[in-house]
Amino acid sequence: MMEIKGTGIGQGVAVGPVVRMAERLPEPVDRPSHLSPDREIERATASLSVVAAELASRGATAGGAAQDVLEAQAMMAEDPSVVDEITKRVEAGKTAERAVFEAFATYRDLLAGMGGYMGERAADLDDISQRVIAHLLKLPAPGVPNPGHPFVLVARDLAPADTATLDLGQVLGLITVDGGPTSHTAILAREKSIVAIVGAADASGLADGDTVIVDAERDLVIASPGTDEIADAKARIAERAARDTAPVTPGALADGTPVPLLANLGSADGAAEAIKLGAEGVGLFRTEFLFLDADRAPSVTDQQREYTRLLAAFAGRKVVARVLDAGADKPLSFLNDAPEENPALGLRGIRALRHSEVILREQLTALAAADAATDAELWVMAPMIATVEETRYFTELAKELGIRVAGVMVETPAAALIADRVLAACDFASIGTNDLTQYTMAADRLLGTVANLQSPWHPAVLKLMADVGRAGAELGKPVGICGEAAADPLLAVVLVGLGATSLSMSPSALADVRASLARYRPDDARAIARAALAAEGAAEAKHAAQAAASEIPTSRAAAS
Amino acid sequence: MMEIKGTGIGQGVAVGPVVRMAERLPEPVDRPSHLSPDREIERATASLSVVAAELASRGATAGGAAQDVLEAQAMMAEDPSVVDEITKRVEAGKTAERAVFEAFATYRDLLAGMGGYMGERAADLDDISQRVIAHLLKLPAPGVPNPGHPFVLVARDLAPADTATLDLGQVLGLITVDGGPTSHTAILAREKSIVAIVGAADASGLADGDTVIVDAERDLVIASPGTDEIADAKARIAERAARDTAPVTPGALADGTPVPLLANLGSADGAAEAIKLGAEGVGLFRTEFLFLDADRAPSVTDQQREYTRLLAAFAGRKVVARVLDAGADKPLSFLNDAPEENPALGLRGIRALRHSEVILREQLTALAAADAATDAELWVMAPMIATVEETRYFTELAKELGIRVAGVMVETPAAALIADRVLAACDFASIGTNDLTQYTMAADRLLGTVANLQSPWHPAVLKLMADVGRAGAELGKPVGICGEAAADPLLAVVLVGLGATSLSMSPSALADVRASLARYRPDDARAIARAALAAEGAAEAKHAAQAAASEIPTSRAAAS
Repeated sequence: MMEIKGTGIGQGVAVGPVVRMAERLPEPVDRPSHLSPDREIERATASLSVVAAELASRGATAGGAAQDVLEAQAMMAEDPSVVDEITKRVEAGKTAERAVFEAFATYRDLLAGMGGYMGERAADLDDISQRVIAHLLKLPAPGVPNPGHPFVLVARDLAPADTATLDLGQVLGLITVDGGPTSHTAILAREKSIVAIVGAADASGLADGDTVIVDAERDLVIASPGTDEIADAKARIAERAARDTAPVTPGALADGTPVPLLANLGSADGAAEAIKLGAEGVGLFRTEFLFLDADRAPSVTDQQREYTRLLAAFAGRKVVARVLDAGADKPLSFLNDAPEENPALGLRGIRALRHSEVILREQLTALAAADAATDAELWVMAPMIATVEETRYFTELAKELGIRVAGVMVETPAAALIADRVLAACDFASIGTNDLTQYTMAADRLLGTVANLQSPWHPAVLKLMADVGRAGAELGKPVGICGEAAADPLLAVVLVGLGATSLSMSPSALADVRASLARYRPDDARAIARAALAAEGAAEAKHAAQAAASEIPTSRAAAS
Repeated sequence: MMEIKGTGIGQGVAVGPVVRMAERLPEPVDRPSHLSPDREIERATASLSVVAAELASRGATAGGAAQDVLEAQAMMAEDPSVVDEITKRVEAGKTAERAVFEAFATYRDLLAGMGGYMGERAADLDDISQRVIAHLLKLPAPGVPNPGHPFVLVARDLAPADTATLDLGQVLGLITVDGGPTSHTAILAREKSIVAIVGAADASGLADGDTVIVDAERDLVIASPGTDEIADAKARIAERAARDTAPVTPGALADGTPVPLLANLGSADGAAEAIKLGAEGVGLFRTEFLFLDADRAPSVTDQQREYTRLLAAFAGRKVVARVLDAGADKPLSFLNDAPEENPALGLRGIRALRHSEVILREQLTALAAADAATDAELWVMAPMIATVEETRYFTELAKELGIRVAGVMVETPAAALIADRVLAACDFASIGTNDLTQYTMAADRLLGTVANLQSPWHPAVLKLMADVGRAGAELGKPVGICGEAAADPLLAVVLVGLGATSLSMSPSALADVRASLARYRPDDARAIARAALAAEGAAEAKHAAQAAASEIPTSRAAAS
């Protein structure tokens, strides 16, 4: 038995055999070919075509932004200049494998040598080169495996292109060597309720077929577990499965103080499932899905139809919609196509919408019409607010266009620091903890090398959330949480202690959070929050909260 | 007379004739050439060679990171694949200009189509294409002009490659249409004491030869000024020149409370000038200059020699050195060459040094040796601190290696928010206002489209600085300011009111700040700071500070 530490996502447990993502292929040896150049060219051309076709087909399956990336890769695989470079080398006597390797490497180096950011596209060329060489050598292609049985996937980290084609029905658990709690892998795991440990540096030693226990609640992977440990894990899996099918009640603290538990949704498709899992409404309705595949914004009519579909599913309940949050990791060519050195600090969210106000006006018009057409209670909020002036701009425009309740996302440190003035100028605030953490710590939420800084448990982040909670209480305005932090059962208690009045999360996290909140009274939550706030760092804050929580009398917890 | 608004850098005034950066060339018409293909190829090849040689020579003149960029461009200009593409088109009957345009456009589109960030390098290809076409057409090349007489440069914005080759001796003033107070243009203007207005959107209407007044103090450009206005501007220029030659005194408030005024320096070269302008020491000694041109870190001996040279120039005074701040806009291949989506939120500063601890150890060793060899008082600080744990890591290592006073830069919101805990773990803090503003507002300091968010006057930024000032006062530890904000004469007063105990800036700003501080007593500074803190936004904070300052009795100001 060996324990491998990492960061658990959610509270689940999984047991199963390891399947590793294929590792990089070795560099093909530079030796004279024993085949004729014509034969080698035939081999290379055939493999290039197969890989191009595979990439295009993966793209068609994936759809969305992944499709664009994969189709661009397919085109690169058959680019005439690349074919010329390969032919030249084969004619000089090299093998197809070596010629492919060198030809892509030339372009790769050209790109990489051109400047800092080129490496990113250079990696796309590497990926094509690896796939073509794998095909020539009849080796497994790099990328996501498909062993034909349920498995625990072990990878360095998953890219969006990998997750797009992963057969989630077969994945028991995910373990990544790199990546933090806000990596793509972590987000995928939360959305799809997959048990995951990210940033498990020592997991690179795991081999195909090893049985492992993935214990997200305890932040660790158990390699070579004993039979007792396996039995224990299976019992916990069964226990969670039983609880997940128990009747759901509204979110509340032990004394009955309601804390509405809401769902983060990306379209109307997840509505039924969210309601089944006990979502009391929607705390974050992401509206990007309508825009991401498009060359231009969808019509007001098309938008209204989609919004109505979601709102109708939540009749009599609250739905908080976020207007289009484009830019950063979600670029939209019709909104902002200028290259930016640091897109996370660029023209995104309300900044981009303001530059293209017609898009914002149309979206607000469509949302207001959908609100009027249904019995849901629609609230609308703007992303990336940093100033009171932006707050006023948004709320005035929203009200003008028929939105009844208009608020802001608090995801910049600036908005949190002047939350009193921001909340005075709008109806409510919702804290986006992922971005707030990213900016407060100045650490890219998707970058593995700074993953150790990306915790919403950091007292600096908690302090900003306390500022917002205090301002909300003083002004009598709701403060929701809609970032991943709300899905952490203990952190959820801290957030309520800091003044959050509702919590929104991936529906799969609702059961754990509901059970956790029911254990504490409002004073307990505040005491636990104070303990976390006073800590030195993120890990210390989590420990302090755990210690404070463990001092709550069991009798009181039992009273829930 | 017409006033054009913008953001003034510093307090200066300039008068002179406009010279504009050359605009983009029109697309060459696609018509059959009347020359033979051989002749056209000859023309194209000759122009490609000239441009490649020019770029390489500009690179050699510029040195540093600019040299790498320009040399990569020179190589691209003569890339055989590009030459092939041009030849193919000329042989089909096109002109050299058109063939060059199309050949580069093909590669450009290939790059641009590959993904979001490619646009950046695509722009490099555009630049080469423009230069080659300009040479073929015997038109002025795009880029910085050299009219042979003193001039006011009007540009959309200046890139580092432009400023590298600008003849500063001829530049009376700078006006940019884009760019904010932390743009490259603004930083250059402060460092070189050039009068500048940035973000002057309406300046694009100015024509070559127009006389303009650049009034940085009043944040505006006066186009077509009358003779009275020109006379008034010239009088102000003379007055400032007279004051600049007056004897200098140490920085202090009106009641004599000392506020040491220090210099930001990038090498020992500026030391004599800084002392002449009254610098009482160095508040920010940037040590990157030793590393930027190198493939690997310089030896301990080489570093020690350079550090000693600077420290010797400040015998008996304080010198605050910042250890290597690589990453973000200052990438160093030997420290962090991984491509990052958002380098400003990546592995930079102390994060990168920790990954390559030997470089940090060597630098601290060299600094300690230089300290021992001179009579200066050396303080050393680490950039990009976000946690107490990083603070402890740095100060313990620094002390172990013989540094007597070790502190941190406060430039992440996190470090400011937990300043009490950070300062408890080190000897002093120095606030880097540029980065602190960037992260607090989540607005890239070098990106023109979000320039309106980049003000250190924003109350959220002021509140963070107040947190640091308060923690410093409670713990009795010094809190300096070393960002551009300290160079703003009124903001300098606010910073002292918020608890700053010393201010460091470009030496050229010392005189204005010294004069401003001498007008106010400590209570005045605190009252002005409170007015700014309570404001809604950056502009309102500046106005509130101006209003509060104007209420200070003149008699008291006169007492200074």
